[in-house]
Order: sequence, then C-alpha cells, then structure tokens
Amino acid sequence: MKLLITGGGGFVGARLARTLLARGTLAGGRIEQVVLTDIAPPPADLLADARVQARTGPLLAQTDALRTETFDGVFHLASAVSGECEADFELGLRSNLDSTRALLDALRANVAAGGKVPRLVFSSSVAVFGPDAAVPLPKLVADDTLPAPQTSYGTQKLVCEHLIADYTRKGFIDGRAARLMTVTVRPGRPNGAASSFFSGIIREPLAGVESICPVSPDVSHPMSSPARTIDGLIAVYEASREQFLGRLGMNLPALNVKVSDMLDALEQVAGRKVRQLVRFERDERIAGIVANWPGGATAERAARLGLKPHENFAEIVQQYIDDCKALPTAAQTLKAIQ
Amino acid sequence: MKLLITGGGGFVGARLARTLLARGTLAGGRIEQVVLTDIAPPPADLLADARVQARTGPLLAQTDALRTETFDGVFHLASAVSGECEADFELGLRSNLDSTRALLDALRANVAAGGKVPRLVFSSSVAVFGPDAAVPLPKLVADDTLPAPQTSYGTQKLVCEHLIADYTRKGFIDGRAARLMTVTVRPGRPNGAASSFFSGIIREPLAGVESICPVSPDVSHPMSSPARTIDGLIAVYEASREQFLGRLGMNLPALNVKVSDMLDALEQVAGRKVRQLVRFERDERIAGIVANWPGGATAERAARLGLKPHENFAEIVQQYIDDCKALPTAAQTLKAIQ
Repeated sequence: MKLLITGGGGFVGARLARTLLARGTLAGGRIEQVVLTDIAPPPADLLADARVQARTGPLLAQTDALRTETFDGVFHLASAVSGECEADFELGLRSNLDSTRALLDALRANVAAGGKVPRLVFSSSVAVFGPDAAVPLPKLVADDTLPAPQTSYGTQKLVCEHLIADYTRKGFIDGRAARLMTVTVRPGRPNGAASSFFSGIIREPLAGVESICPVSPDVSHPMSSPARTIDGLIAVYEASREQFLGRLGMNLPALNVKVSDMLDALEQVAGRKVRQLVRFERDERIAGIVANWPGGATAERAARLGLKPHENFAEIVQQYIDDCKALPTAAQTLKAIQ
Repeated sequence: MKLLITGGGGFVGARLARTLLARGTLAGGRIEQVVLTDIAPPPADLLADARVQARTGPLLAQTDALRTETFDGVFHLASAVSGECEADFELGLRSNLDSTRALLDALRANVAAGGKVPRLVFSSSVAVFGPDAAVPLPKLVADDTLPAPQTSYGTQKLVCEHLIADYTRKGFIDGRAARLMTVTVRPGRPNGAASSFFSGIIREPLAGVESICPVSPDVSHPMSSPARTIDGLIAVYEASREQFLGRLGMNLPALNVKVSDMLDALEQVAGRKVRQLVRFERDERIAGIVANWPGGATAERAARLGLKPHENFAEIVQQYIDDCKALPTAAQTLKAIQ
C-alpha cells in the first residue's frame, strides 16, 4: 500500500512514519511506499528508508500534482500551530484551511478519474472546544460537546472536520477526524503553539535549563504522550466505519492533569533539583488563550477502539526520558539527570 | 448608511430590501443606499427605488471590487439551495463556501485599509442539524444542539457560521449567524430545495393546481413565514453584541408543524376542495433527505430579542393569501379561492 503523510517532517508526522515503517503493515496491508510532505525535509533515518519519498515545500503547492496520484491512505497532519495562527491570520487560513480543501479536492479528483477511495485520518485538536457566552464550557469536554472554538486554529480544525465529514458522506474519501490532545513531552525547541510550555516545563529542566511556566500551577489540561498519540492515529485509521461511529470528530484519550501534578511527577522521576528549575512568571497572552481551553477531556468513542490514556504523568515523563536515551543527543537533552 | 444584500434578487433578499426601504432606517441609521447583488436582477419595484443599486452576476466575481468599498452593514443571503448542492457538489462549494470566504476577505481587506468594521448578518439554516451515529437528533433542536449536518448545504452553512464567528472574534466584522427555519409559503415556482414541497402543497392548491407531497403526513418540520423570517434577520442585525449572546449561530423562531397540520390549516382557510388538490406520492430521494432533518426547533436566544413564531399555520396561509392579493398576479396565484 501507498501512504501519504502530510506534515511528515514534523515531530508527530516523523514519529508516525517511523512507527508505521517499523510495523510494516497497516489495516492488514503491507506498506510499500510512504510519501512525506512537509515544508522541511524529514529526519535522516526516514530518508534512509527505501520506502520513503520526501517532498519538501508547502502542501498547497503540491496538491495539483496529487490529483493524478492514488494513495491507499492519508494521514493529514500538516498544520500551522495555534500561536502562529493567532499572530498571522492569513497563514492559518492558507496552511490549515486552504491546504486541507486543496488536498481533499485532489483526492476527490483522483477518485473521479477512477482511483481508489483513500482512507484519511485528520489530526484535529482539542482546540475546537471553548466557552461561548451562550454555552459554558463543561469541566471535561466529550465527543459530543458543542465545539465553540476561541482561536483561529481551533476554528480551522473544526471547519476541516466538517468538510472531511461531508467529503466522506459523498464517498470521495473515507475520512476520520481525531482530536489530538496536547502532545507532551515534545522534544526539541519551543514552538509557536500557545501550549508549547506544557512540554517546556518538563523538557528544559531535564536538560538542566531553567523554564518559565506562564500559567498558574492550578491550570488543568488534557495531555497525551507522543507514543499514545501515534497509537490513536493508527487505531483510528484501522477502525471500520462502524467502529468509528458516525462522521463527527472523535476525541483521542487524554490524561487530565494540573501543572502542579506535572511538576510532582517530574520531581518523582528526576528529583527535587530538576523541578526547581521551573519558575512561574505569568504571561497574560498565553494565560488568556489557555483560560479558554478545557481543563480536561473524555474519550468514550476512542475507548471503544481500545485506546487508553496514560495512568499518570510520571509515565509520560519516563517515556520522554527513554526516548531521549535512545538518541545520540541524550547527554544534552537529559543533562540534569545524567 | 450603506447596506449590501447578497442574494438581493431572491425571494427573501428582495423582501428584506423592500422591508428595509419602507422602514427607511436600520439600527438607528438612515438607509441611504442598498446594493443588491444576485445572479439575476431584482424585481422592478426595487430597481425603481433611487436608493437601490443592483449588481448582477455571481457573488464570487464581485468580491474583488468589494475590497475597496465600505459598507455599514451586510445581509449575506446568497446561497445555492440544498437540492442543488446535493446534485452538484462543486456548485455548493463555490456558491456557499468560496463566495462567503471571498466576501469575508473583501470586508477584512477594506477594514485593514481603514474602512469601518461592517455589521454582517448571515442566513444560516436549520439544515446544520442532523443525526449522526454518535449523536442522536433530539426531537427539537435548540441553539446549543450539536450540529451534525447531513447535506453539503448544511455543512457549508455550518462552516460559514464558524468562519464568521472567527472573523468577528478577530474584529474584522461584527458578524451574526441566524439559522433560518424553512420559509413557507414561498411564492412562484418550485425551486431546487429539498424542502420546496412544504410551500408547494399550500401554494399550488390555492392556485387550483394539483400538488404532490413526497413525504408522509406525519412528517413534522420547523417553519417560518416570510414576514417573520425578515423580522428575524432585522432583529439580529439590530441586536447589540451582548444581546446576540456569544458568537455561535442562533436559531430563528419556528412553528413546528406536521404536514397534516399544514393541510388542516389550508382547509380551514381555503376549504376542503383546495385541500383535496394535494396528493401523497412518496419520493424516496426527498423523503430520505427530510428524514435527516429535525422535526422541530426551539429558539431561546431569539425569544430574548422579542422574536416569536406564528401561533398556528393558518396564520401563515393567511399571510400568503394577503401577500398575493396585493399583487397583479392575484387572480392566478389564488385561482382556487377567488
């Protein structure tokens, strides 16, 4: 089978590609080719795999060519992140809405020309939820909570969910929107996401670097580890239409934790000195965005697919440490505990 | 003040224009100019009004020019209807989604160049609601019911609601989405809407013409008369942001009636012989679409604006008859009762 992963050079996309290539199969088919599109090239280990073809550049510039290419499956992960979309409205519309629309139309054109109907998993986001004057935000957002996005990013994700549902209803694709929880701990540098600090307050202290938490320790948030997020995307791909249950977006499992719980877990795994590298310094812009996010989520439909959140945040910290240890950069990323 | 009405040549748009011109004011401002855009020219009485400027052609072809034109207010009613959008997927995307996006971007560009932020009322639809495998449709859909559109038309309306909410949040427009109930009785010929028969089973018998009802007499549906629909659009325009309550779409008031109630009302107003001109002949395509529509709606937010549905369907039949009597075509449209 031939797969397309948009955003395949990014953290989630590259990890998904690596996991799929290691499995070798997906939904019973043998993976023969994986096309990775992204604005930057994928990591070297992926480029070294003969099954991988990397295409570098904006997705929007690549969709015309996709009209004549048949894929068995697509993981559509390419996206500008929340902070970027708030700062640059046009960027968000182009990267998240226009690119998705052009991708869907390319897949539709290929089907109209006789190509196979591709299965498509879309990475939506818990950012579709928010409070609106007419509808308070519940303590935990569920699959059937009324979305009221409070960011352009959340709006664009929700709009894409509905477009994908309609293209699916019409038989142009077999689409499924999975709402990702905040993926923590992300490796590397902070990014433009307003949620970036959720990774930073774990990642930086483990590297012996001070980190600033811009919100109160009481802030609660739905999290998922990178590995569980990838498990979720694959399970959603492999589900039958009946198992996916309808066409609306599905929440992926979340561990609902407070910032203070995260830091307790960090201390438990890495010690008191590491925890003390986190300093609280309120950032009104970030705190304002986060205040409109749900404090937690449930994921009933995902549970029926056998998907579960981590039991506690210490598991997530430990997963990050284990991931780092496998890399040549371990000495740097885990400086504080080595 | 200068107003833009897209779809201003259509039934609802022309009636809205007529009502606004007769009032002479809107939200405390004097109406000096009304620009009507539509694929067909507006009726002659509107063209004869010195305040009216008609621009004929697809909205999408007109949006570039709108980037340098400042409007105080916009009623965005232009839309392909549900049946058309099911039959022609591209038409729906172009007429309902791309055109709205281009209009919003034109208004945004004008604001960016120093123009006044326009108030915008968008005619969304009760078609945003539907049953999904994960979420059953409630007996009555409320303002806060989770939308799960089952048509491309409903999907496109919902997507536009969310785009308008986000452009509003960003301060590019002051937008409000009002969900229209099925407008009955529409004059003229049947149109491509799957709901067209709801008007046909009243309009045709009154003209002495047989009409076919493609669904069971037990089918219930949320209706609104043309006059109440116009009242709703104007009240939503005139509401303050606080009165509108948030940024999510608002249901306009509905009279929830069964087809059999509609025919009882027709008989009550126009007699048994007129009612007998309606014949039941099931159309699976129409019945299938209608089966996914809600049987009724509530409108709590609209009620706070003082908006109410009709008390009974006989009022709606009588309004149609009174409207017809005022026109030179009365002899034809009311042939059965004159």
